[in-house]
Amino acid sequence: MTVSELIQEIKTKKSYLCVGLDTDVEKLPDHLPKTTESILTFNKAIIEATNQYAVAYKINTAFYEQYGAEGWTIMEETLKCIPTNCFTIADAKRGDIGNTGKMYAKAFLKNMDFDSITVSPYMGKDSVEPFLSYGKIVIVLGLTSNSGSQDFQHLPVGEQKLYERVIENVASWGNPENMMFVVGATQAEKLKEIRAIVPDHFLLVPGVGSQGGSLNDVSTFGINANCGLLVNSSRGIIYKSKGEDFATAAGVESQSLQRQMATFLD
Amino acid sequence: MTVSELIQEIKTKKSYLCVGLDTDVEKLPDHLPKTTESILTFNKAIIEATNQYAVAYKINTAFYEQYGAEGWTIMEETLKCIPTNCFTIADAKRGDIGNTGKMYAKAFLKNMDFDSITVSPYMGKDSVEPFLSYGKIVIVLGLTSNSGSQDFQHLPVGEQKLYERVIENVASWGNPENMMFVVGATQAEKLKEIRAIVPDHFLLVPGVGSQGGSLNDVSTFGINANCGLLVNSSRGIIYKSKGEDFATAAGVESQSLQRQMATFLD
Repeated sequence: MTVSELIQEIKTKKSYLCVGLDTDVEKLPDHLPKTTESILTFNKAIIEATNQYAVAYKINTAFYEQYGAEGWTIMEETLKCIPTNCFTIADAKRGDIGNTGKMYAKAFLKNMDFDSITVSPYMGKDSVEPFLSYGKIVIVLGLTSNSGSQDFQHLPVGEQKLYERVIENVASWGNPENMMFVVGATQAEKLKEIRAIVPDHFLLVPGVGSQGGSLNDVSTFGINANCGLLVNSSRGIIYKSKGEDFATAAGVESQSLQRQMATFLD
Repeated sequence: MTVSELIQEIKTKKSYLCVGLDTDVEKLPDHLPKTTESILTFNKAIIEATNQYAVAYKINTAFYEQYGAEGWTIMEETLKCIPTNCFTIADAKRGDIGNTGKMYAKAFLKNMDFDSITVSPYMGKDSVEPFLSYGKIVIVLGLTSNSGSQDFQHLPVGEQKLYERVIENVASWGNPENMMFVVGATQAEKLKEIRAIVPDHFLLVPGVGSQGGSLNDVSTFGINANCGLLVNSSRGIIYKSKGEDFATAAGVESQSLQRQMATFLD
């Protein structure tokens, strides 16, 4: 799915919701056996219950890698369950140079056919560009929502903060059709300044809900003419109920978020 | 393997050589079938031929992930072929917060039992600390050897460069027993300054050989009382010959590097 197609889906569904499939076998509903197979059963049900309200799904690769080869297969199978009218994100936070970067890109963007992958910018241009080689979308970490973002991202670099410099430089290596940025929801007040640097790029905003970010603030400061936002919620949706109604509960929660989002898209 | 045990092995073998298993099916010797199974055959032979000269092996995860679940299994099998008296590095360049970071750590340091993993520092303290929770070693990107290192790592931050600030801060989150840094060999002249910041930490130095770094410069500027260096060579060793003698050639090349290293350890 391209950025243009994503914009169309956002208009159709009146939603910029991304559901994070951070599925942990320890947190599965009580009635499901605590096996890795249950992760796929769970993911399928969550996707079916939420895809009329969500425009994107984000698969956090760590949750699957912890089960080795078996987990990798479950990740692949989960990706196949996501309808083609939804944007898919490999939240892999990779980043390496040249040939190595290309292999990560191939793994996620070609072999697995994700629409996009998250990438860390620390190694610079030649660690981001390989991810542009499959005609998909690279989502670069800009300003993250964790407390550790203070350690380096906020360091002053000339007149800017490091994250501002990173976003500005990285944006010059691509365009809004092949690049997005991760901006944490707990830093919603920064979204206005970031919009001044990248008015046209999509921003992937994790941290709404469980991590304390406000959908209202994020939307107020982050939306542009094409929406330009994907707001992710993981635990707040997929673990809404530990009962047999987990999928229904996830659907209801997604619908609730979608309805709030619709008010910002009018 | 702990850092103390690594130091002992370095003394025993008179070597600080790390062999990078960046095995690409396209670059296998001509007589081997171009299948993923051949990667394991190749890795086994390389390990057998080089382990008397090398103290460490670095597995570049991208090369295995490109083959999905099958590649993951080959990575696990490769790790099992490495003798227990060699230090093992998952060159995964991961990095994520809290629970997600712990899952990456679990995947590589517990389930697969690597001794260490490479991690990107951009997200800060709470993205590095989860990797310390299995009593293994985290190897944090400090100054990398690629041209893109100029984009952010060399930015001035107060009186320092960003990479100096990163190394100084990150070092305060652990100690030389549970933390190392990646420092690129093409920036050997910087090793002296970095040694002033982290006199006691091991430095993992990629980029000698194919990427143009000099073993002589790296050793002159980087060695400390406990050696404190792991110098990695990948392509220069494993692809030394495309013929049936590939393993022998890799052994000879490793021995040559080991002999040069021995002169710095006297």
